[in-house]
Amino acid sequence: MDPDVSVAACPFCQIIAGRLPASQVYADDLVVAFMDIRPVNTGHLLVVPRLHAVSLAELAEDTGATMFVTGQRMATALRASGLPCDGINFFLADGAVAGQEVWHVHLHVLPRLADDGFRLAPSFLSPHRAELDAAAERVRGALNHLPG
Amino acid sequence: MDPDVSVAACPFCQIIAGRLPASQVYADDLVVAFMDIRPVNTGHLLVVPRLHAVSLAELAEDTGATMFVTGQRMATALRASGLPCDGINFFLADGAVAGQEVWHVHLHVLPRLADDGFRLAPSFLSPHRAELDAAAERVRGALNHLPG
Repeated sequence: MDPDVSVAACPFCQIIAGRLPASQVYADDLVVAFMDIRPVNTGHLLVVPRLHAVSLAELAEDTGATMFVTGQRMATALRASGLPCDGINFFLADGAVAGQEVWHVHLHVLPRLADDGFRLAPSFLSPHRAELDAAAERVRGALNHLPG
Repeated sequence: MDPDVSVAACPFCQIIAGRLPASQVYADDLVVAFMDIRPVNTGHLLVVPRLHAVSLAELAEDTGATMFVTGQRMATALRASGLPCDGINFFLADGAVAGQEVWHVHLHVLPRLADDGFRLAPSFLSPHRAELDAAAERVRGALNHLPG
């Protein structure tokens, strides 16, 4: 069954509208930052656009730009906050297969600690240059045909 | 031993200068995108600033903004490229503890497939609201004292 991606079903829109509680850190005209309620570490926060955007494709580029800059500032603030923080990860999931669970774009800003148990567990490939070039060509081709 | 974070030791600066090969997808005045040589999936690429910046803290905000917008465009291009891509992750590691291995900021743009073996393996916490509020207050406090 497809998920309900509407504003009405969106917890982040409820938070932004003040109808659900959140531990807010930052807000401006385009984005809001608040604590993740299921943090990996204390201080784990989310940067979200004010306007409901289900996916990266729906997200206005100026808002995406502001999300990243806000993430940078949140990273600096976390490192200066006195909360344990030896490193930072940004993480964003676009699509169910990528791990997206809330259907409103959000950038995770994760304080990291040595041995915090959080890790990426990928299996890396070792392609030849020709394979990398072929992949690059496919993406370049698609890029050249994007609208706008 | 601390890592050598200099330009001279930086493989991405070598790529940008044309002294190391790369499978390039995109370039503008601020950022370059090319294939990761150790991809999780075919099409896995990196968006990097032209100017050497070791960390998020060293990265100019207009460049950070451009990295994210470029990531959005790369995501759209990957989905349109014909390469297998059912979802996208953005990932960025700031600091050795966070998994940073190349000392030049880079945003991973990962095409995702169902059952591709790539996953985040975190152990989530379940803090009370008061704990979330306390963390938010610490970060807000630090944010209010950032320069600029």
